Amino acid sequence: MADGGAPASSSSLVEKQFEDFRLHLEESGSLRERIRAVAAEMESANRIMHSSLLLVHQSRSVPEVLEKAKGQIVVLKELFNRLAEILRECPGQHYRYHGDWKSETQTMISLLAFLHWLETGNLLMHHEAEEKLGLDASEFGPDIEDYLIGVCFMSNELPRYVVNQVTTGNYDCPRKVLKFLTDLHAAFRMLNLRNDFLRKKFDGMKYDLRRVEEVYYDVKIRGLTTNDDSTEDQGTTQA
Amino acid sequence: MADGGAPASSSSLVEKQFEDFRLHLEESGSLRERIRAVAAEMESANRIMHSSLLLVHQSRSVPEVLEKAKGQIVVLKELFNRLAEILRECPGQHYRYHGDWKSETQTMISLLAFLHWLETGNLLMHHEAEEKLGLDASEFGPDIEDYLIGVCFMSNELPRYVVNQVTTGNYDCPRKVLKFLTDLHAAFRMLNLRNDFLRKKFDGMKYDLRRVEEVYYDVKIRGLTTNDDSTEDQGTTQA
Amino acid sequence: MADGGAPASSSSLVEKQFEDFRLHLEESGSLRERIRAVAAEMESANRIMHSSLLLVHQSRSVPEVLEKAKGQIVVLKELFNRLAEILRECPGQHYRYHGDWKSETQTMISLLAFLHWLETGNLLMHHEAEEKLGLDASEFGPDIEDYLIGVCFMSNELPRYVVNQVTTGNYDCPRKVLKFLTDLHAAFRMLNLRNDFLRKKFDGMKYDLRRVEEVYYDVKIRGLTTNDDSTEDQGTTQA
Amino acid sequence: MADGGAPASSSSLVEKQFEDFRLHLEESGSLRERIRAVAAEMESANRIMHSSLLLVHQSRSVPEVLEKAKGQIVVLKELFNRLAEILRECPGQHYRYHGDWKSETQTMISLLAFLHWLETGNLLMHHEAEEKLGLDASEFGPDIEDYLIGVCFMSNELPRYVVNQVTTGNYDCPRKVLKFLTDLHAAFRMLNLRNDFLRKKFDGMKYDLRRVEEVYYDVKIRGLTTNDDSTEDQGTTQA
Repeated sequence: MADGGAPASSSSLVEKQFEDFRLHLEESGSLRERIRAVAAEMESANRIMHSSLLLVHQSRSVPEVLEKAKGQIVVLKELFNRLAEILRECPGQHYRYHGDWKSETQTMISLLAFLHWLETGNLLMHHEAEEKLGLDASEFGPDIEDYLIGVCFMSNELPRYVVNQVTTGNYDCPRKVLKFLTDLHAAFRMLNLRNDFLRKKFDGMKYDLRRVEEVYYDVKIRGLTTNDDSTEDQGTTQA
Repeated sequence: MADGGAPASSSSLVEKQFEDFRLHLEESGSLRERIRAVAAEMESANRIMHSSLLLVHQSRSVPEVLEKAKGQIVVLKELFNRLAEILRECPGQHYRYHGDWKSETQTMISLLAFLHWLETGNLLMHHEAEEKLGLDASEFGPDIEDYLIGVCFMSNELPRYVVNQVTTGNYDCPRKVLKFLTDLHAAFRMLNLRNDFLRKKFDGMKYDLRRVEEVYYDVKIRGLTTNDDSTEDQGTTQA
Repeated sequence: MADGGAPASSSSLVEKQFEDFRLHLEESGSLRERIRAVAAEMESANRIMHSSLLLVHQSRSVPEVLEKAKGQIVVLKELFNRLAEILRECPGQHYRYHGDWKSETQTMISLLAFLHWLETGNLLMHHEAEEKLGLDASEFGPDIEDYLIGVCFMSNELPRYVVNQVTTGNYDCPRKVLKFLTDLHAAFRMLNLRNDFLRKKFDGMKYDLRRVEEVYYDVKIRGLTTNDDSTEDQGTTQA
Repeated sequence: MADGGAPASSSSLVEKQFEDFRLHLEESGSLRERIRAVAAEMESANRIMHSSLLLVHQSRSVPEVLEKAKGQIVVLKELFNRLAEILRECPGQHYRYHGDWKSETQTMISLLAFLHWLETGNLLMHHEAEEKLGLDASEFGPDIEDYLIGVCFMSNELPRYVVNQVTTGNYDCPRKVLKFLTDLHAAFRMLNLRNDFLRKKFDGMKYDLRRVEEVYYDVKIRGLTTNDDSTEDQGTTQA
C-alpha cells in the first residue's frame, strides 16, 4: 500500500458512500414494495375476473358472463396506470422491476384475450390490449413476450370450452375454435422463440390444438354438424 | 361470438402483428447476442487480470504485479464502453439485459478493488470505479448492488493474502487488513440488505474478518509484532 | 465483566434452571409421544376406512360399502376424543403439536366427506364433521384449513368414481358429479387462499373438474343420457 | 345418493359455510400480517443491537458498547409487548403463529445473553430475559427451546471474543470464558434434546469449547497468564 495520506478522511469518505448507498437501497426497496402492493391488487383483480369468466364453461349466457368480467377491466386499467405512475419515478428502470408484475400481466392478457375472443371471435391484438388498459406504448405497455405468453395461456382454456359447448349441444363450436387455433398456431410458428419459458408455453399450444381436433372429429363422425365444412367463417354469433 | 365483420382481414391483421413481433424478437435477440459477445470478452479479460493479481500471493513485488494487472483495465474500459454504446441503441432497456453482464461486473469490481487496495490501502469508491472505466454515471455505470457484491468478493481474497504475507515475514500486515476489514464490515452493517444474494455474500465477509482476527492473534501471541496495539493507523505503506 | 458477586451460587442457579428445563422437556416430549401414538392409530383407522370405501369403484352395492366404512367412524371418534383429552392437559398448546395429527385429520375429512356425499349427494359441512366425531368446536375440532384440504382430497376421488359408474351403465352420474364439483369449485373461489399447501391442493381441483367434464362430454356425444340438459337437479338418489 | 330433499337449500348452506370461512381466513390472514410486521421490526432492532455489540470485538470500551446496545432493549421490550397484545386477540393460538417470530426470539436471546454475560459474567436466566422484556411468563414469554437455541448462538460468539481479547493483551479472558462455557456445556448435557434443530446447535457448542481451550493453551504455554490456575473465579471485572 502506498502512503495513505489521510486515512481518517478516507474512512469518513467510505462512511459517506455507504450512507448514500443506504438511502439508495431504502429508496429502491420502498419503490419495490409499492410495485409489489400494486401487483398483489392486480392478482386479486385477475382472480375475480377469472371466476366470472369461468362461468362460461357452465352454459351461462355469454353476454351476461362478459358483462360481469368486464367490470374488472376498469380495475385493472386503474392499477396499470398506477404502476405506470410509479415507474415514471425511476425512468429507464422499468425492466429492473419487471419481474414483480410480469406474471400478473401474462394472466391478465390471457383473460382479456379470452374475453375478447368470446365477444368477437378474433385475437386480441397487442395494441388493443394497450388501449383497453389506457396505456401509451411509447412509455409503458405490456411487454411483447408477456403478451405472447398470455395468448398461450388463453389457448389452454379453449379445449375445455369446446368440450362444454358440445355438451350443451353447440356442435358448431369445434370447427370455429379449430380454425382460430390453427391460425394462431401458424402465426406463432413464424417467430424464432429464444425465450425459454415462452417456447415451452408455445409447445403446449400443440396439445390444445390436438384436443380440439379430436372433439371436432367426434362431432363430425357422429354426423352432429349439419353445416358445410368450408373453413370460411359465415358469421360467428354464438349461443 | 358477435358477428366477426371481416374475418379474413382480421386474419391478415394477426399475420401482420406476428410479422412485427418476428422483427422485434429478431432485433432484441441479436442485441442480446452482441451483449453476450462483449460479456464473454469481459470474462476473458477478468480471467487474465485475476491471474496477474494472484501472483501477489506468491511474494512477487507488488508494483510489478500491479503493473501487469493494470494492463487489463484498458481492455475492460474498452469493453464497457462498447457495451454502453450497444445499450444506447435501446434506451431505457438497460435492466432488461442486465443479467447478461452483471456477474462479469461483480468480478471486475472485486479485481479493481483488490488492486486499488494493494496500491493505496483504501477502498475503491464506486465513482472511482466509474472513472477507471471511463463511464458516465448519469448514463451507464456499474449497478450499486453489483459494486457491493464485488467488494464482498474482494474481501474473500484478504485472509489468504494475510496468511501469505505473514509467511514472508510481513508481521504488520494482519493489523492493517483487520482495521480495513473491520471498517468495511461496519459500513456494510449500516445497509438494510433486501437483495438475497448480496445479503448472503455479506454474511460471508464475517468469516473473512474472523480468519484475519485469528492470524492477527497468532502473530500477537507469538510476540511477532513490535509496534504498539493502538488501532490508530500510522501510515499504510506496504511491503 | 462487573464483579460477579457470588459466582458459585450463580452456577447452582444455572444448574437449577437446567433441571427445570429437563423436567419441562421430558414432559413435553412424553406428551408428544402420546399424541404421536394416537396419530398412528388414526392413520391406521383411516387406512382401513379408505380400503372399504375404495370398493365403491368396483361396482359393489353402495349401502354395503357405506356400512363397512362407517364402522371406522366409531374408531376415529374414540381416537379424536382421546386426543382431545391429552390436549386438555396442555391448555393453549393445541397448535404447538398440531403438526403431529394434521395430515391424519385431512385424510379423515376426505374419507368422511366422500362417504357423506355417497350417502346424501351433499357436501359434508364442517360442523357435521365435528358432530360425527363427537367433538365440541369451542374446545377442539378439525382446523378449518385441514377441513378444506380434506375436501380437496375428496374431490380427487370423484373423476375415478364417475368413470367407473359410467362403465357400469350409470350414465346420469357425470351430470350430478359435475354439478356438485362446479358448485364446490365456485365456493372455494370465494376464498383468498394464503396457505400455500391449500392453494396448491385447490389448484388440483380444476383438473378433477375438467376430467368430469370430459366424461360428461363422452356420454352426451354418444347420446347415452336421456334426460334434458337443465342443470336443475331433480332428485339425487343414486344407484 | 339418498334423496337430497332440498338441494337448493343445501347449496345455499355450502355458500354460507364458505362465506364464514372467507371471513375466518381474512381474519387469521390479517392477524398473521400484523404479527409479521412486528417480527420485521424485531429483526431490525436485533440488527442494530448486533452492530453495537460487535464493537466489543474491536477493543472498544465495554461499558460504552453495552450502553449503546441496551438502547435497543427498550425497543425490543415495546415490540414484544405489542406482539403479546396481538396474541391476546387469539387466545390459545399462540403456537399457531409461533413460527413467524421464533427466529427473531432466538437471535434476541443470543444478544441479550451476550450483553448480560459481558456485564455480569453470568448466564442470562430465562426468567431474567422475561423481566428485561417486561413479559408475564404465565401469559406469554420466550419459548424454552427458543431460549436454549439463543444461548447456543451466544456461545458461538465467545471464541471470537476470546481471540480478540488476547490480541489486545487481556490474557486472563480465556480462563474465565472457558469456565463459563464448560459449565454451560455441562448444564446442556443434562437435557434430553428431542428437538432436532436445538440438538444440532448444541452439537456446535462443542467446537466453541474446543477453540477456547486452544486459546487458553496458547496463553498458558507461552507463560502469558500470571495468576493461579484455580477454576475458582475471583471477581470477574474485565478490561
